Amino acid sequence: MTTTLSESPFLAACRGQTPAHVPVWFMRQAGRSLPEYRAIREGVAMLDSCFTTDLVVEITMQPVRRHGVDAAIFFSDIVVPLKAIGVDLDIVAGVGPVVAEPIRTRAQLDQLRDLEPDDVAPVIAAVAALTGELGGTPLIGFAGAPFTLASYLVEGRPSRDYRNTKAMMHTDPELWHDLLGRISAIAGQFLRMQVQAGASAVQLFDSWAGALSLADYRTFAMPHSAAVLEAVADLDVPRIHFGVGTGELLGAMGEAGADVVGVDWRVPLDEAVHRVGPGKALQGNLDPTTLFAPPEVVEREARRVLDQGRAAHGHVFNLGHGVMPEIDPDALTRLVDVVHAYELD
Amino acid sequence: MTTTLSESPFLAACRGQTPAHVPVWFMRQAGRSLPEYRAIREGVAMLDSCFTTDLVVEITMQPVRRHGVDAAIFFSDIVVPLKAIGVDLDIVAGVGPVVAEPIRTRAQLDQLRDLEPDDVAPVIAAVAALTGELGGTPLIGFAGAPFTLASYLVEGRPSRDYRNTKAMMHTDPELWHDLLGRISAIAGQFLRMQVQAGASAVQLFDSWAGALSLADYRTFAMPHSAAVLEAVADLDVPRIHFGVGTGELLGAMGEAGADVVGVDWRVPLDEAVHRVGPGKALQGNLDPTTLFAPPEVVEREARRVLDQGRAAHGHVFNLGHGVMPEIDPDALTRLVDVVHAYELD
Repeated sequence: MTTTLSESPFLAACRGQTPAHVPVWFMRQAGRSLPEYRAIREGVAMLDSCFTTDLVVEITMQPVRRHGVDAAIFFSDIVVPLKAIGVDLDIVAGVGPVVAEPIRTRAQLDQLRDLEPDDVAPVIAAVAALTGELGGTPLIGFAGAPFTLASYLVEGRPSRDYRNTKAMMHTDPELWHDLLGRISAIAGQFLRMQVQAGASAVQLFDSWAGALSLADYRTFAMPHSAAVLEAVADLDVPRIHFGVGTGELLGAMGEAGADVVGVDWRVPLDEAVHRVGPGKALQGNLDPTTLFAPPEVVEREARRVLDQGRAAHGHVFNLGHGVMPEIDPDALTRLVDVVHAYELD
Repeated sequence: MTTTLSESPFLAACRGQTPAHVPVWFMRQAGRSLPEYRAIREGVAMLDSCFTTDLVVEITMQPVRRHGVDAAIFFSDIVVPLKAIGVDLDIVAGVGPVVAEPIRTRAQLDQLRDLEPDDVAPVIAAVAALTGELGGTPLIGFAGAPFTLASYLVEGRPSRDYRNTKAMMHTDPELWHDLLGRISAIAGQFLRMQVQAGASAVQLFDSWAGALSLADYRTFAMPHSAAVLEAVADLDVPRIHFGVGTGELLGAMGEAGADVVGVDWRVPLDEAVHRVGPGKALQGNLDPTTLFAPPEVVEREARRVLDQGRAAHGHVFNLGHGVMPEIDPDALTRLVDVVHAYELD
């Protein structure tokens, strides 16, 4: 059992050191797959729960207690800092983030002011409380990357093709870069507050960056993601950088300043190693839908991921995307056991 | 101007020969971006229009007349052969294909009987009429690939994560392979009828195969796609194989029996060349959202695609996915002119 952060397998793997076992956590581990989560969220709106310290602490702890994962990720949503500075948005069940007035003009940029500690006081209080309660289990802080946050602000809601976002990019690149500059400042400030309150690592979620070609990613997204990661560069915490469908972008996502590059299930980890280049650890990458299969299939597929992960500078086991709400939580607990039983030597 | 099929730049590029100019056509060129299409479809349900010979002919011709593209693709939908054998499905505006009773059990496989010429008589009549009317412009026939069609049959509607589809794959591989075997027989029969009626090339749309890892693609999808392509192997027409987000699958999609591999906008064509291997032409791959940008941006991006396409054994210019309904059709006409003006030497 881990008793201090200095022995954390998660932090060791992130840093390319040799962990006692392959560490594992799951994106969206704190969430609707757990009955105890559904019970505690009963009648509480998503964004209300994100701004309620006790709920954030309890929900963050639930998967740590149940599954024995090697890291906690604080319960929140990538739109929380935008809500905190007053953007009129909500998370609508079955839809996702919905912005009342999509941002399409320069005049609208003014509402994207800097994030002050008071804006997110209950959130940061939860981070501080959690680092005490978690003991030797590291807490991962996180933020949404500028491109992904911009896609919500510009489209006004989740999109399949990001048409308005890409149109702004190509039609008015100056407005685009100013918008992403504002968002990157806010995201960087938010990450910094989380680390200063005790988070041991950060993950930058550029969930939808995979919609961009590599050339567009390098021109329109990467400089702003790099600015967010740079905002915590002096704080000595591992920085994880993740997106879905980013096979072509893995090298650039590493270059943006990541210590760990998250990989979805489409690129085998032993191939991803070549794309991210030397000195960077990998996180991933079991297809989350595999968890609907019988235990022997899950174990076989997990072992394949683990075998492929040996090629990496360090390997943090995870799914290739978030846990689906309909997944049997026992399948997750069994998966943690499979990963922990894997012999590294 | 092309006057006979033997001089077709499209067919030359597909075969790796030297065309007079880079050929161009657009996925979904016959469709909602055109006012003349919206007018003729007024009050006619999508599937009804697909089974009405005169409408299929007229709608197929519209973009050829307007844009001067180098190939026509017959107006239809990938679910047409399933509808034709009696599967209870409809195409719902704003949603996509909706199947009344999703296929999840062996007993349901019986409804997937072979496709007979009578089932699609008005469709094949349209293909025959078109090849006369088109003269020297080739007609592309098409079918949906087994994985993509299965995803609609199993999910019952468009899906973001294909959870039921992947669950069947991993939980009951025998049922899965039997289902895809049935679908591949039907798709192969449909393609064969189109070519025998005069289509000069075929495209197999595995639109959603990019949701699979390479290992799962090879095990669960590729053998069935190969069977479809094999069904027209003796007919001496170029076979195009396309999907979205297939960066990791391009080699396997070529191996499945394609002469031309379609590439979405995520992988530059000069990189795709290495993934598909020698002797195969490429089709693609301008990001369709680029068409919302000003003409000079579209031209710049199109020229980048054309420059990258020079590395290919043959290059058919296209978008990386279908034309969006909101695109200004004049932007498409201008894009055809840019491609045709490009100097190959």
